[in-house]
Amino acid sequence: MNGRLITLEGGEGAGKSTVLAAVRAQLEAAGRRVVVTREPGGTTAGEAIRHILLDPAYQGLFPETELLLMFAARAQLVRECIRPALDRGDWVLSDRFVDASFAYQGGGRGQPASRIADLERWVLDGLRPDLTLLLDLPVEQGMARAAARQGSADRIEQESLGFFDRVRLAYRERAAADPGRFRVIDASRDLDTVLDQVRAAVDSFLAAETVS
Amino acid sequence: MNGRLITLEGGEGAGKSTVLAAVRAQLEAAGRRVVVTREPGGTTAGEAIRHILLDPAYQGLFPETELLLMFAARAQLVRECIRPALDRGDWVLSDRFVDASFAYQGGGRGQPASRIADLERWVLDGLRPDLTLLLDLPVEQGMARAAARQGSADRIEQESLGFFDRVRLAYRERAAADPGRFRVIDASRDLDTVLDQVRAAVDSFLAAETVS
Ligand SMILES: Nc1ncnc2c1ncn2[C@@H]1O[C@H](COP(=O)(O)OP(=O)(O)O)[C@@H](O)[C@H]1O
Ligand SMILES: Nc1ncnc2c1ncn2[C@@H]1O[C@H](COP(=O)(O)OP(=O)(O)O)[C@@H](O)[C@H]1O
Ligand SMILES: [Mg+2]
Ligand SMILES: [Mg+2]
Repeated sequence: MNGRLITLEGGEGAGKSTVLAAVRAQLEAAGRRVVVTREPGGTTAGEAIRHILLDPAYQGLFPETELLLMFAARAQLVRECIRPALDRGDWVLSDRFVDASFAYQGGGRGQPASRIADLERWVLDGLRPDLTLLLDLPVEQGMARAAARQGSADRIEQESLGFFDRVRLAYRERAAADPGRFRVIDASRDLDTVLDQVRAAVDSFLAAETVS
Repeated sequence: MNGRLITLEGGEGAGKSTVLAAVRAQLEAAGRRVVVTREPGGTTAGEAIRHILLDPAYQGLFPETELLLMFAARAQLVRECIRPALDRGDWVLSDRFVDASFAYQGGGRGQPASRIADLERWVLDGLRPDLTLLLDLPVEQGMARAAARQGSADRIEQESLGFFDRVRLAYRERAAADPGRFRVIDASRDLDTVLDQVRAAVDSFLAAETVS
């Protein structure tokens, strides 16, 4: 049987990387082999592309360039890593995936959703996440958490509050339009409460998988 | 008045870089300010993308990834360099441009021309070369010239003869379909003869420009 693709989405500091470790452990405890990846990146070429996307040295990147680079890294990730993993029955857990392009390059940068959907169609060729956990919280709260983290802000993290408000809105709109795939997690709560919500969402997904 | 965009196309070792210097001198002698660029590359981000495209370390690049990277570099080049130059009245001379994607990613790698045309439409947004010099010669002859050059072969130069045959065919088909823009130069001849053909083509383009 084919594996399943679970993606984690949300703004900066929402808790994606923190939650990912818990989901991985939960899936492995349920007997799934899990491959963990992230976007942009996840392959040798993809990590080189990630560097161009996030290094503040490339301030002058145009929105169209950013969108194409995101999909270039994604094209490679799907073909080199995700599809082969799913084909051999592994589950794939990705820290961001295609919804992030609708949120960041679409909502944030104003690239038309139709253009992103065109790229999605041929680059993903029908692949879509089976479950997407959207970690949703007010922008200021996420930024405060991210600021408390180690390291300096990357090129996208340096964006304005208005940019991240548009990103959050776009994420929420996508979740509302596809409630079968998305689970919206209230990520403003304390970590234990967030992890409880995530565990419940993954449990019910696993239960539905076992029945079908 | 807006500047003009002249592109040089052709396979490996066809003589593009050699001819480019002569065309530049000819245009400058005719009183044009000339901006010279190349693909993939020509901008800071674009040269970083070029590195991913050409470094043999990225052997595993999928055709879709390559196509998207080419257009990412092109999106940046058009917005950061070519359009501003044309807007201030400069002439732009590019060592390869969008026809190379139809030839290499299309003919060579088999990506559908319709997909490349879609990317061309929104990435170039109506920009097209005013004159394209296609340096055409048998693949083996170009490869022999390129092999005699300094330096080791890049990732694309390492491709098979069949690949380059498809590239040449795709270039010739594009030229045949758009004879108003293309001038096909017999690049198999000795350099003086090639430069004579090129000079004549550029002269007649300049003459037509002056009249109109
Ligand atoms: N629910 C939470 N409450 C408080 N702090 C949190 C919570 N979730 C994550 N954090 C902390 O916030 C910071 C950002 O979390 P992280 O998982 O790196 O977010 P993301 O990967 O979404 O950017 C980390 O320091 C993390 O420990
Ligand atoms: N018409 C020609 N006859 C013989 N050698 C040529 C001719 N044009 C170029 N060369 C040589 O062939 C090599 C490849 O030319 P180059 O301009 O670098 O090609 P390209 O840029 O198209 O790959 C160079 O060493 C150049 O000096
Ligand atoms: Mg993270
Ligand atoms: Mg050259």
